[in-house]
Amino acid sequence: MLAPDTLGPTLTLGEILVEIMATDPGHGFDRPLNLRGPFASGAPAIFIDQCARLGGQAAIVACVGDDDFGRLNTDRLAKDGADTSAIAISPDLPTGTAFVRYRPDGGRDFVFNIAKSAAGQIAMTPAAKALLAKAGHLHVMGSAFAIPHLWALLEEAIPAVKSRGGSLSLDPNLRKELMTPQTAARLAQVVAQCDLLLPSGPELQLAAGLPDVPEAEAVAALLTRVPEIVLKRGDQGATLFTAESRIDQPAFAVTEIDPTGAGDCFGGAYLTARRLGLPPAPCLQLAAPAGARNVTVLGPIAGATTLPAFDPLIASSTGHRT
Amino acid sequence: MLAPDTLGPTLTLGEILVEIMATDPGHGFDRPLNLRGPFASGAPAIFIDQCARLGGQAAIVACVGDDDFGRLNTDRLAKDGADTSAIAISPDLPTGTAFVRYRPDGGRDFVFNIAKSAAGQIAMTPAAKALLAKAGHLHVMGSAFAIPHLWALLEEAIPAVKSRGGSLSLDPNLRKELMTPQTAARLAQVVAQCDLLLPSGPELQLAAGLPDVPEAEAVAALLTRVPEIVLKRGDQGATLFTAESRIDQPAFAVTEIDPTGAGDCFGGAYLTARRLGLPPAPCLQLAAPAGARNVTVLGPIAGATTLPAFDPLIASSTGHRT
Repeated sequence: MLAPDTLGPTLTLGEILVEIMATDPGHGFDRPLNLRGPFASGAPAIFIDQCARLGGQAAIVACVGDDDFGRLNTDRLAKDGADTSAIAISPDLPTGTAFVRYRPDGGRDFVFNIAKSAAGQIAMTPAAKALLAKAGHLHVMGSAFAIPHLWALLEEAIPAVKSRGGSLSLDPNLRKELMTPQTAARLAQVVAQCDLLLPSGPELQLAAGLPDVPEAEAVAALLTRVPEIVLKRGDQGATLFTAESRIDQPAFAVTEIDPTGAGDCFGGAYLTARRLGLPPAPCLQLAAPAGARNVTVLGPIAGATTLPAFDPLIASSTGHRT
Repeated sequence: MLAPDTLGPTLTLGEILVEIMATDPGHGFDRPLNLRGPFASGAPAIFIDQCARLGGQAAIVACVGDDDFGRLNTDRLAKDGADTSAIAISPDLPTGTAFVRYRPDGGRDFVFNIAKSAAGQIAMTPAAKALLAKAGHLHVMGSAFAIPHLWALLEEAIPAVKSRGGSLSLDPNLRKELMTPQTAARLAQVVAQCDLLLPSGPELQLAAGLPDVPEAEAVAALLTRVPEIVLKRGDQGATLFTAESRIDQPAFAVTEIDPTGAGDCFGGAYLTARRLGLPPAPCLQLAAPAGARNVTVLGPIAGATTLPAFDPLIASSTGHRT
């Protein structure tokens, strides 16, 4: 069961980045291009920013460089109401960067600097421990399974939050091709303790440990371990599965500008609304436009939004995204 | 005396970067901007690219990441005729990056990732040793005094090249505010062995170890140690000083688009023409348009050029840059 917001903030651990986007589609970065950026980014940061903007208590354990890119992110999170006390500043490593270019086929090419940036230095600082001691919920991003040291932090954070009555959510955020036996074992360990699972598409089967089974079979297997699953289907909407019910939430009709971060905004909005006391159905109705609105705005965090911003979208909804 | 090109290639050691430029002037990178990039960059790479494009033998010891930014640089240098055999590829560190934004007052703001990028991993690899064994000239960039490990490589490279009859040039490329006693000692050690010194503006006094003296006094002191000095004065041209003569070279009339790399192109062209056997005066007449042309093109290496490209500039020269 998800712990109420009154127990303490939703906490996440993970990478803060800036994203630099090529404005013209194509392949790679092998010549000078028109770019736009830096945009505040990093899946955990997008998620927690959306939590804060919906009025939930929200905090992040992270590390940025002592540069404009770090300040851009920290300022954004603080302005949106997130607790930034546990964002450490590396004295010598730069803020993580991700150059992104959309391919004509909708795929993406990247040039990353994450593991060897300040984002690779996330540690259980005194400020992080202080947050952990009062957190009401921990949200785990699958990227934590891939960043060195982050798993060790989770092994401390999960029992700490659980032991004080806090709850746990997971966005697997993993690709099948990147699964190692170690990653699979860690994933299974988190799934087993999860109160809310937020997979996208085939991550459902990965989370179930059943890569090739039909959706219904993966859902049935997971419901023996996880009480609440929201399957994110991108422009096909989302589906809530619990032992008692299934709710299908259509997507919203929007023109896609930049899909990066849509799933994170969806998840942050859903979790926050649940922790603020709403039942699943209205939470889905809030989460869908949160994800949809993010798609309409350039910049992964730029689309995170407050409740009033949803109203025009909800009013104009045709039930399908274009 | 400068060793002829026939003795072996001009070799340099140092950082290869991509540069990402803000297209609108202003301060810093604290919000999303229009950018253009990645451009091949890094002062040693710009210098050696210009050497190669003028038809001199040219090689660089460097390290890039296993990413598009590294390939962009290596492909450019190879296409322009430089020996890229000693450009190592780091398996885990990204290619260095420099975000640059011009301020309205002509100053520049940067966000760098150099020391903690692949550029910080330059090492005396077998490929680098092989180049050293056949180099005819070593060009030292002052940035080598600041990048960890690079000084140790220079302490091996300078005597190796000198002992086989090779010559040495230095572009101090240092700012007074960054001078430590250690940097000053290293600078003095290289100056004492130098066959050609290529300072810009007040670097002349820094190289003389006499920070506050008039130009003539610094020149006189340096000429007791260095046989040939070319003082780069930006849009005021350049001056050659030897024990026997002084030649003033006016700048060329061009519209400034991007001054980054102009001094490196000037130096690379001058040195290469000298090593190919031309006396100082015509070398200055080649170097000035090489620097000037670089200023007219966006991207630090993009302006490096071959001899025919100089002709229109030389033909249209009014003797002053606008």
